[in-house]
Amino acid sequence: MRIEEENIPEYLQSVIRTIPDFPKAGIQYKDITTLLADKKALKLTTLALSDPFISKHIDVVVGLESRGFLFGTNMAAVLDAAFVPVRKPGKLPAEVISESYELEYGTDNVEMHKDAIRSGAKVVIHDDLIATGGTAAAATKLVERLGGEVIGYSFIIELSYLHGREKLKKVPVESILTL
Amino acid sequence: MRIEEENIPEYLQSVIRTIPDFPKAGIQYKDITTLLADKKALKLTTLALSDPFISKHIDVVVGLESRGFLFGTNMAAVLDAAFVPVRKPGKLPAEVISESYELEYGTDNVEMHKDAIRSGAKVVIHDDLIATGGTAAAATKLVERLGGEVIGYSFIIELSYLHGREKLKKVPVESILTL
Repeated sequence: MRIEEENIPEYLQSVIRTIPDFPKAGIQYKDITTLLADKKALKLTTLALSDPFISKHIDVVVGLESRGFLFGTNMAAVLDAAFVPVRKPGKLPAEVISESYELEYGTDNVEMHKDAIRSGAKVVIHDDLIATGGTAAAATKLVERLGGEVIGYSFIIELSYLHGREKLKKVPVESILTL
Repeated sequence: MRIEEENIPEYLQSVIRTIPDFPKAGIQYKDITTLLADKKALKLTTLALSDPFISKHIDVVVGLESRGFLFGTNMAAVLDAAFVPVRKPGKLPAEVISESYELEYGTDNVEMHKDAIRSGAKVVIHDDLIATGGTAAAATKLVERLGGEVIGYSFIIELSYLHGREKLKKVPVESILTL
């Protein structure tokens, strides 16, 4: 069953709030807390995120801290997959692998448990929003170092003017809303 | 439909990993990433968390950053409720209210959007684990300042020897596992 894709993005866009100048001047921040506060939108977002992958065999949904935790576990349940978190440094308690990504000034790191992905696992990487794509690209490296295969990316919102998808693998990059 | 409560906690306990001396010496850290990596456990956790509240009318599930984001949205979908995040300072983009709670040394703060809860809303507060109960108690104050009514608490793991529930309101405190 395909979702009526014409109407859902329009509805979800109507419940996402734009906050000017957050976290700093000039940025139009896309606030999904108003989407989370709408119980219909909450369910539709999970369905719309899962829909492109429903007929594929997905072993693992990787969610990026911390807003990728909100829908990553819901997607995993719908897709009958496991969920693996990618976290900021020092948060994961067992042995980790780490990758850095570029910020506007300097770099930052993300981590994944070393035993999180088995070799050959088919993986979808999820976050609420793709901007420059740095974190998703770093998450891709983490998955591949453990022998996993990234077969797609899943975002609620894609800021297409930042060209984030150019940093990602040539597999489907699925965004509900492209802004 | 009630879930067979005898078997689910035992199964979930079997997939939670204990990491000694994390984040510091003497702490036996309860790692739920191994539960998230088990797709059966992922679904059962959502059901077991939601079960005590399924026959009540819940308007909002409040999830505490960031591990409370993992199952809070799943619970909200099952309970036909909205989801509201409580976050660390500076993360929420619109106008917030703030409450402090005690740490071992000093205090910390949590925030909620000022428009997140409507007056009279019936709220369940969720996190993965209750230790001393400080964050859940601070979240309670945030909900009540906005006119919401906390009608229950929901945790995967309760560290009962830390007596966290004594800091909470006299409403049901539901934990899947009491350690």
